[in-house]
Amino acid sequence: MKKSEFGFIGDIATMFGSLPHHGFEPIGDDCTVLSMGDEALVMTTDMLIEDVHFLRFASSAEEVGHKSLMVNISDVAAMGAKPVATLLSIALPESAQGEWAERFMRGYHEASQREGVALVGGDTTASKDKIAINVVAIGRAPMKNIKRRSEAKVGDVVAVTGKLGISSKGLVDIMFGDLNTAAAKHHRLGQARTTEGAWLGARSEVHAMMDISDGIASDIKHIMELSKVGAEIHIDKIPTDYDIRFATTGGEDYELLLTVDANRFDSLAEEFSIATETTLTKIGTITESNTLSWLENGAPADIELKGFTHF
Amino acid sequence: MKKSEFGFIGDIATMFGSLPHHGFEPIGDDCTVLSMGDEALVMTTDMLIEDVHFLRFASSAEEVGHKSLMVNISDVAAMGAKPVATLLSIALPESAQGEWAERFMRGYHEASQREGVALVGGDTTASKDKIAINVVAIGRAPMKNIKRRSEAKVGDVVAVTGKLGISSKGLVDIMFGDLNTAAAKHHRLGQARTTEGAWLGARSEVHAMMDISDGIASDIKHIMELSKVGAEIHIDKIPTDYDIRFATTGGEDYELLLTVDANRFDSLAEEFSIATETTLTKIGTITESNTLSWLENGAPADIELKGFTHF
Repeated sequence: MKKSEFGFIGDIATMFGSLPHHGFEPIGDDCTVLSMGDEALVMTTDMLIEDVHFLRFASSAEEVGHKSLMVNISDVAAMGAKPVATLLSIALPESAQGEWAERFMRGYHEASQREGVALVGGDTTASKDKIAINVVAIGRAPMKNIKRRSEAKVGDVVAVTGKLGISSKGLVDIMFGDLNTAAAKHHRLGQARTTEGAWLGARSEVHAMMDISDGIASDIKHIMELSKVGAEIHIDKIPTDYDIRFATTGGEDYELLLTVDANRFDSLAEEFSIATETTLTKIGTITESNTLSWLENGAPADIELKGFTHF
Repeated sequence: MKKSEFGFIGDIATMFGSLPHHGFEPIGDDCTVLSMGDEALVMTTDMLIEDVHFLRFASSAEEVGHKSLMVNISDVAAMGAKPVATLLSIALPESAQGEWAERFMRGYHEASQREGVALVGGDTTASKDKIAINVVAIGRAPMKNIKRRSEAKVGDVVAVTGKLGISSKGLVDIMFGDLNTAAAKHHRLGQARTTEGAWLGARSEVHAMMDISDGIASDIKHIMELSKVGAEIHIDKIPTDYDIRFATTGGEDYELLLTVDANRFDSLAEEFSIATETTLTKIGTITESNTLSWLENGAPADIELKGFTHF
């Protein structure tokens, strides 16, 4: 369960902490983990609400179907697991019950097919005004492959896959009515790093991992908090084609943020790019300090990152 | 995934049927089943939408929390499994973000505690107008305990737990503004048959099982269809304190509908009532015919059951 704007999530973890766990790990990571002997099952859920997470005029129904799957399997990939199945709940107002619903399912099916993910259950119901979608993604991996936010070690390299900022640049384009820029299309049709996540899961030099949901400025803090470490991030090393604000505080890039044994980073990055055709870029170092420092060309950076509030 | 009013669920099962299943059984039962060697994991999901599944003035937030858990763990019980954990997604309009949300969580927690079920993940988000809630329930059982809708045999006794009709009687009371009748309270605070479901799961003479979601008149047809059998139901044998329409076409009783080896029914019912303090009543027989017959005092019953449309 992720942090939320309502402030009662912390209370919830405390409230439910005393109940029997039945083998599930406590709340706090991209997915919950259930150990079944040598194998782990991971599960995550995300809800998408019309006019909060998508606008019907700005995204096609197929794109909403695609995105509903991607946001969830990205969390599975972030654990080092392979997504295998989903459950889909969908509440439809009358205006979305015919063509919109069918086109949504087409987008969801196409993305499921590409990722080789089964649809194993769900619920469909009516709603009064707005579309509500909930997806649960289930992944499997050898237990030893599971990557947690809490495993970063002092001295680790902080690295990211791919390039950052394109999704939030696309969101701003959409807000300006420019629906067809490359970045806007990426925002709607970005691909989760499923091959990359499972590949990195199998590597013991990868310590902590998560997907980038809210931008690295915010997400690295989850790793710091749970691993009880600090971090230095080099702004000039962040791989991006856009404004640094998009690359640091924009979210939904579906890229992975990870920490790696420093002695083994270079060879890992080389093998990774050969195996997956995706780059792995060093952007900083895990420190002992408990604080987050931004550097630019080796000196403290003169920036203030405020974060981005989604519509 | 249940049948729905939108008619495209059948298409969905076909559409996704060709994707790899990764060990999950196909769509069609109360829960999906994942076999992990000798053990089975079952999973189900249900979405509750404000003004479709509950009214804010007619149910307290605690009661909505309670119901959100119960509708899901009832599906787990129906598989013969023990519910162990849930994931909860909740979308809240501004008007529900403070006290309502906290009271909802209190109801959800109290029910989780009573059932010994962990909360292992979830999502909280904003919504524009209406509350949307999605719960996923996860259960475990030895693989050999899992009960499916498809396992009814010709000659089996058709039986139900407890008494039927109280929940839909309560719903009608609520519709008339009588919020505090015993039936209305039961509608809002009914208990899933979790002890009973796990107990019946362990008995080999229990063949098919499901929970009563839409009333036996509709639910028995799922067993008939998947088991390729017919059924005779004796209206005068149905355990109820209310109008027979409530007991046959009203839903949400959280009672279990099952078929049992006829030679072993009497001893099963006796042991069951001693172990669980719940009655198990024979209401009919599985037949070869593929049709559903209603009998009254041994003769064809002169009734027409139209079903009930929820608000």
